[in-house]
Amino acid sequence: MLVVMQAHATEEQVRAVCQRIESLGLKAHPIPGAIRTAIGITGNKGAVDLGLLESLPGVIECIPVSKPYKLVSRDAKEEDSVLRIPTPGGDVIVGGNHVALVAGPCAVETEEQCLAIAQRVKKSGVKLFRGGAYKPRTSPYSFQGLGESGLKILSKVREKYGFGIVTEAIDNESLDLVEEYADVIQIGARNMQNFSLLKRAGRAKKPVLLKRGMSATLDEFLMAAEYILSEGNYKVMLCERGVRTFADHSRNTLDLAIVPAVKKRSHLPILVDPSRGSGWGGWAAR
Amino acid sequence: MLVVMQAHATEEQVRAVCQRIESLGLKAHPIPGAIRTAIGITGNKGAVDLGLLESLPGVIECIPVSKPYKLVSRDAKEEDSVLRIPTPGGDVIVGGNHVALVAGPCAVETEEQCLAIAQRVKKSGVKLFRGGAYKPRTSPYSFQGLGESGLKILSKVREKYGFGIVTEAIDNESLDLVEEYADVIQIGARNMQNFSLLKRAGRAKKPVLLKRGMSATLDEFLMAAEYILSEGNYKVMLCERGVRTFADHSRNTLDLAIVPAVKKRSHLPILVDPSRGSGWGGWAAR
Amino acid sequence: MLVVMQAHATEEQVRAVCQRIESLGLKAHPIPGAIRTAIGITGNKGAVDLGLLESLPGVIECIPVSKPYKLVSRDAKEEDSVLRIPTPGGDVIVGGNHVALVAGPCAVETEEQCLAIAQRVKKSGVKLFRGGAYKPRTSPYSFQGLGESGLKILSKVREKYGFGIVTEAIDNESLDLVEEYADVIQIGARNMQNFSLLKRAGRAKKPVLLKRGMSATLDEFLMAAEYILSEGNYKVMLCERGVRTFADHSRNTLDLAIVPAVKKRSHLPILVDPSRGSGWGGWAAR
Amino acid sequence: MLVVMQAHATEEQVRAVCQRIESLGLKAHPIPGAIRTAIGITGNKGAVDLGLLESLPGVIECIPVSKPYKLVSRDAKEEDSVLRIPTPGGDVIVGGNHVALVAGPCAVETEEQCLAIAQRVKKSGVKLFRGGAYKPRTSPYSFQGLGESGLKILSKVREKYGFGIVTEAIDNESLDLVEEYADVIQIGARNMQNFSLLKRAGRAKKPVLLKRGMSATLDEFLMAAEYILSEGNYKVMLCERGVRTFADHSRNTLDLAIVPAVKKRSHLPILVDPSRGSGWGGWAAR
Repeated sequence: MLVVMQAHATEEQVRAVCQRIESLGLKAHPIPGAIRTAIGITGNKGAVDLGLLESLPGVIECIPVSKPYKLVSRDAKEEDSVLRIPTPGGDVIVGGNHVALVAGPCAVETEEQCLAIAQRVKKSGVKLFRGGAYKPRTSPYSFQGLGESGLKILSKVREKYGFGIVTEAIDNESLDLVEEYADVIQIGARNMQNFSLLKRAGRAKKPVLLKRGMSATLDEFLMAAEYILSEGNYKVMLCERGVRTFADHSRNTLDLAIVPAVKKRSHLPILVDPSRGSGWGGWAAR
Repeated sequence: MLVVMQAHATEEQVRAVCQRIESLGLKAHPIPGAIRTAIGITGNKGAVDLGLLESLPGVIECIPVSKPYKLVSRDAKEEDSVLRIPTPGGDVIVGGNHVALVAGPCAVETEEQCLAIAQRVKKSGVKLFRGGAYKPRTSPYSFQGLGESGLKILSKVREKYGFGIVTEAIDNESLDLVEEYADVIQIGARNMQNFSLLKRAGRAKKPVLLKRGMSATLDEFLMAAEYILSEGNYKVMLCERGVRTFADHSRNTLDLAIVPAVKKRSHLPILVDPSRGSGWGGWAAR
Repeated sequence: MLVVMQAHATEEQVRAVCQRIESLGLKAHPIPGAIRTAIGITGNKGAVDLGLLESLPGVIECIPVSKPYKLVSRDAKEEDSVLRIPTPGGDVIVGGNHVALVAGPCAVETEEQCLAIAQRVKKSGVKLFRGGAYKPRTSPYSFQGLGESGLKILSKVREKYGFGIVTEAIDNESLDLVEEYADVIQIGARNMQNFSLLKRAGRAKKPVLLKRGMSATLDEFLMAAEYILSEGNYKVMLCERGVRTFADHSRNTLDLAIVPAVKKRSHLPILVDPSRGSGWGGWAAR
Repeated sequence: MLVVMQAHATEEQVRAVCQRIESLGLKAHPIPGAIRTAIGITGNKGAVDLGLLESLPGVIECIPVSKPYKLVSRDAKEEDSVLRIPTPGGDVIVGGNHVALVAGPCAVETEEQCLAIAQRVKKSGVKLFRGGAYKPRTSPYSFQGLGESGLKILSKVREKYGFGIVTEAIDNESLDLVEEYADVIQIGARNMQNFSLLKRAGRAKKPVLLKRGMSATLDEFLMAAEYILSEGNYKVMLCERGVRTFADHSRNTLDLAIVPAVKKRSHLPILVDPSRGSGWGGWAAR
């Protein structure tokens, strides 16, 4: 359910509608747009008594949302969401017509490694630096990441070069630390349906980069983002990184067609990570 | 690396080898077999000095394990692992030539629902009852399970009918509770590569039922089990439940061929959950 | 479009309806059922003038068929199609509740090989013998089959043991010969959408065994069968043989769930060929 | 097996080697390169007596080819194959660093339709015009193409605008006509493993555009091309057009990573057809 406010509705009017929604035991999600604000309602089991809401000052109409995803939908917000990520080097803009680039090593290994890569990345003009301190590894015997000391190395890179830092959290404990040290919290493909982690990310104060699961459909991908928004964090960017298919000549098959498909249905920005989809070795080179 | 003990090696000899392994800063995993015990070594970055181990009393030989999975492998244990699950109705045996059946509702909804289903399940001779108190749902707006009150309902079913209870944990918090209330901890398909949860399950005292991820390869499936064993919990049973394919006439495609493929490579038992692979509606009926 | 005849409609009435249909420039497909005959109409670009048909003696009603497949559909024939295949050893029945088994070598290599295998197959009670004289091979340098001399070997097996012979045709030329020598014409997975070959099979006088393509959906599979029926050959049996998925532990993934899905939508019999779906080597062993 | 000739080997020397090969009952495939000619040998069941060949004038060495594909391999020809297609508007070059564009309607429907589209295509600078006169359709009730009258319409487009014509053949009969009327013979995805048709295309005098099958692996794709080359037609261009995956937001998933994978292994040019991989409707718009 969405409550659509008039173009010139005041903040008090929006607040009053939200309070009425909350008083019904529901959750209100005000989504400000360029022209008007819409208020998403979640938590309703069945129909909401519209009369209660439509008669409030500033309300144009209440419309039901038939798609399974609500807050991420273009119905809730017609124009593109544009995220502004504060970094030591100034705000980085992701979404709309802005081109955002992210680069860095797969894993944070040493301070020297990270600083050396950071120097080159800086020269290329990229403003967001990525590197994993917590690595979800297929084998328990593979290097699992440096943990908090890896985050501290990323902090030094951040201070020295002014980057915004993007790094992955793999559980609630690591998310606490990533939220503290980094500028963007990454949720990896293997955790795209770790709903407990998504909810925790939805309560974080930092933007979230959500990677598509290895075999996630478009709907499942958008629903995973919906988990984050439904907890109150609207600063979400999606990321396509290749899907699992029968093809054996590359690690994954990059599904570029999901980009326009997402843009059609959702206001969220979407990035593309070509490293796994461009061959077997590419993922190590980024 | 595996240390193979003589058929008549004593417990003290096994213990002495384990102590020597631990003194090298490594982890020892004694795996008792019908004929002899093998001791898996994990935690080694490179080669282990074999001389130190091969000269100990009771040791036949040290053999390197080339496969990515070690403890779950037939190399580590030649004969089938047979799990003995203590339940109020007596021990339930899973593995080897024993036929184990699990039945119950998708989600625990009410005490009445569970008791009614339990009565019928009991009549059919099934000894393990399943039902979700924590449900990983694609949508944040779907019923997420009753949580601990669901576990309490399952406890009543357990007491009344003597079942062993199998129920899913979705994060560390729910795993603590599932471990307390249930007899088998289920890790669902969406969490098959939630490595943080797998490690926690590896430290649990109860057996674990690990479901195959939606697009997990055989190696990834066995490696996920390896995570649990590597933390010390050897009571793991696997479960095939269908994989994601292009086929659109059923929710998932049941991959029965993985059963002999697992049996060839691993000593762990494997169950089959046909509910999703047999149609679109089947999953609701189990 | 289907014309449903009364239970006691006479053969002349059916014939008259067919003639009227043909006089409209359309094709009539009388499909006799246990209780009544339905007459499928194909060739119509748009709506057919029903009045012309519904008023004819013996007609109950004309019903439009909304599914893309018509003649293979349960709408056209409610009860299972049961094929009766004349063989030197008596009629073999395929479909309904009859269990039909097919066995034999992958390729016909020599007379000795075929006779030796046939002797064992005979003992097992199987009545349909298969073996390829024309082999569709991934490599142009692999053995392509013995061609007509292979068919002659199959003829000897047929005479000696009384089998019905099932063998693959790969183009119009081989289909001419297969139709002459064999009892069932097999269309392989790679040719499931070789529509030119399907049409030729539809004009054949022998029953057709149509294998599912490597990545064919249920609808595509039924539509391929529809090609054969639409040319006038209603003696079609389908065969599931595994589909292409990401799974790398077996050559293909056997999709058993398509069996009930086909049975729900179509009256045609469906067989299962487990050889490729049960491992990498299984296909050679059948 | 490949016979590598000296850089300055004469035509007579190449011819003599070919004759010697043929006299052994094998097939010789001289493959001229920028620097030297290699001669592929096919038809050998086992090892060839190299002494017979290595001692001939102009021969450097004989090397075995371990890959399943031989003539399409970079081993047989190190540099890119560049095809020169004669058209009324001059030669069109496909391969190497040349950018080749193909455009036109899905199906040839009327002369007016084709001429109208051709006018626009001409303006865009595209030199190869495509349009189907023979359409492989999932349903027998869909428009199957105009056949030879469609080819005649394409001929008029060819004469009027100077295009090279690319059009699909679906069986031996249509291939005879396509070879007569068109400049490039297209083999569609559904026929990529119609080996009988591939062999016929290998005996054609016109270049062949071979589309990747819906679920063809890289090796299967190259082997399908090998069929054509092994019959003597070396003018083959490949075409990626999207593969079948679980993704349901587009008709197929375009697998761009196959382009560098093909370029690494084969000297053949490869085109990309984005129409099916870019959405559900895109295919109709090209």
